Amino acid sequence: MIELAFSKGGGLLPAVVQDAATGRVLMVAYINQEAWEKTLETGEAHYWSRSRNELWHKGGTSGHVQKIREILVDCDNDTVLFRVEQVGGAACHTGYESCFYRRVDARGEATVTGRKVFDPRKVYGS
Amino acid sequence: MIELAFSKGGGLLPAVVQDAATGRVLMVAYINQEAWEKTLETGEAHYWSRSRNELWHKGGTSGHVQKIREILVDCDNDTVLFRVEQVGGAACHTGYESCFYRRVDARGEATVTGRKVFDPRKVYGS
Repeated sequence: MIELAFSKGGGLLPAVVQDAATGRVLMVAYINQEAWEKTLETGEAHYWSRSRNELWHKGGTSGHVQKIREILVDCDNDTVLFRVEQVGGAACHTGYESCFYRRVDARGEATVTGRKVFDPRKVYGS
Repeated sequence: MIELAFSKGGGLLPAVVQDAATGRVLMVAYINQEAWEKTLETGEAHYWSRSRNELWHKGGTSGHVQKIREILVDCDNDTVLFRVEQVGGAACHTGYESCFYRRVDARGEATVTGRKVFDPRKVYGS
C-alpha cells in the first residue's frame, strides 16, 4: 500500500479532480488519511472539508457523487489525481460544471467562461 | 485585478498545471503573490519552490518552460489552473511527461503507467 506524504501538508493533501470523459479539471479538494481510505474502499470520492472540519462524501447532499475511474499519484506522493465520472454533470456548488469557470487574462481580470449545469437554489434549497 | 486568497494557504496556493493540447494533468505546484504576478507578466509559469524556498521559473534549468495558454481560477479564488504548452514535452523532473505517472488501484498499490520523455541524468547532469 502506497504511503502518501500527509505529514507534508499538515495531515491534508490536495486532490485534483478531472472528468475522465472530457479531461476537464473540475475542482481541487483536500484529503486526509481517512478520506483517502474511504475513497479507495467505496470507489467514490471522499474529502476532508476544511470549512466544516469533517469528512465529506462529495455528492452526499446534492447526489452529485464522483465515481472513481482512475487514481494517479504524483512523483512526491503529496498530490493525487482523481479521474472521475461526475454524476449530475457538475462538480461546483455554484452549479457550474467545473469550479474553474472563470478565465483570467494577462492583466489579471477574470471573465466567466464556464458552463452552468444546474441552479444551486434548486439542488441545495434557498 | 482579481485577488487570490493567498492568506488561506499561508501565502501559498496550489496551481494545477494541465497540458493545453492533450488535457493531461502534468503537475501541481505552489504560487505566492510574486510568482502569480511574474506568471501574468511573462506568460511563463512561475512558482514558489517549497523545498528551495525561492521563486522558481519552471524550466529555468532544464529549458522545459511552460508557456501559458490560459489561466482559470476556481470559485473560492484559492486555486488556479494553468493550461500550458509544455516545452520539451515533459513536466516532471523524473523525465516523465506528467508527475502523475503512477496509477493506484483499489488496494492502494501503485504501478507506473506514464510515459518517460527524457533521461534526467542528461538534462540535469548526474
